[in-house]
Amino acid sequence: MTETIETTHSFKPKFSADGLIPAVVTDHRSGDVLMFAYMNQMALNETIASGIAHFWSRSRGKLWKKGEESGNLLKVIELRTDCDQDVVWVSAEVQGDGVACHTGERSCFYRRVVKPDGTDAAALEFAPLPAPKTPTA
Amino acid sequence: MTETIETTHSFKPKFSADGLIPAVVTDHRSGDVLMFAYMNQMALNETIASGIAHFWSRSRGKLWKKGEESGNLLKVIELRTDCDQDVVWVSAEVQGDGVACHTGERSCFYRRVVKPDGTDAAALEFAPLPAPKTPTA
Repeated sequence: MTETIETTHSFKPKFSADGLIPAVVTDHRSGDVLMFAYMNQMALNETIASGIAHFWSRSRGKLWKKGEESGNLLKVIELRTDCDQDVVWVSAEVQGDGVACHTGERSCFYRRVVKPDGTDAAALEFAPLPAPKTPTA
Repeated sequence: MTETIETTHSFKPKFSADGLIPAVVTDHRSGDVLMFAYMNQMALNETIASGIAHFWSRSRGKLWKKGEESGNLLKVIELRTDCDQDVVWVSAEVQGDGVACHTGERSCFYRRVVKPDGTDAAALEFAPLPAPKTPTA
């Protein structure tokens, strides 16, 4: 039986035309989405080899070891890919201060989209992330 | 004081050159990543207006109300965006059978990346998602 992309055990990540694959990073304890970035083949290789998440910085055009300067490295607890292998999901433990966003917030997703009463337009509201779903250590 | 993109209450989603914004969908109970897709302005508007996740199908070139045929709609529990407003995070409750992937799996991320003993190459292993972090209803 021929294995399809959905059933294969071969890891064949599908990079886009610009050589990138989207990477979603979640907190392995709470499940909260911490950040979103892109990896190229080199960043993905480094991530797998080192167990520390690496990305491709599109703005700086170079390999980006997240947290290298701040100490807030992302330790990979589990790396997954989706049915058609064009996204990766990094379940991570944030090292150092536990902060994943450059703004100092724990997660980049510190605002939610709301529709204020009496308006049609969507706006943003600063709102704490859902409480950790398991007690943190 | 001028509000920056990181501190503004204005929702100004940043679409890429092709008019799309990445959307991460997680299960609002377990935090597991269920799927990943793209929205255009229309899909985002529909998502906000209806409370049901809509995407832009790149392969079919049309608005995609996820689960419209299967009944496995994604009810939006919370919609968030990140610091620079170029990604959205949909925390959702899957309707119907609770299945989000076209393969019949609950999540598209049913395989994890492993390095089998004695090899350097990464491979995929089918592995259950982490157990729900709160009891499901």
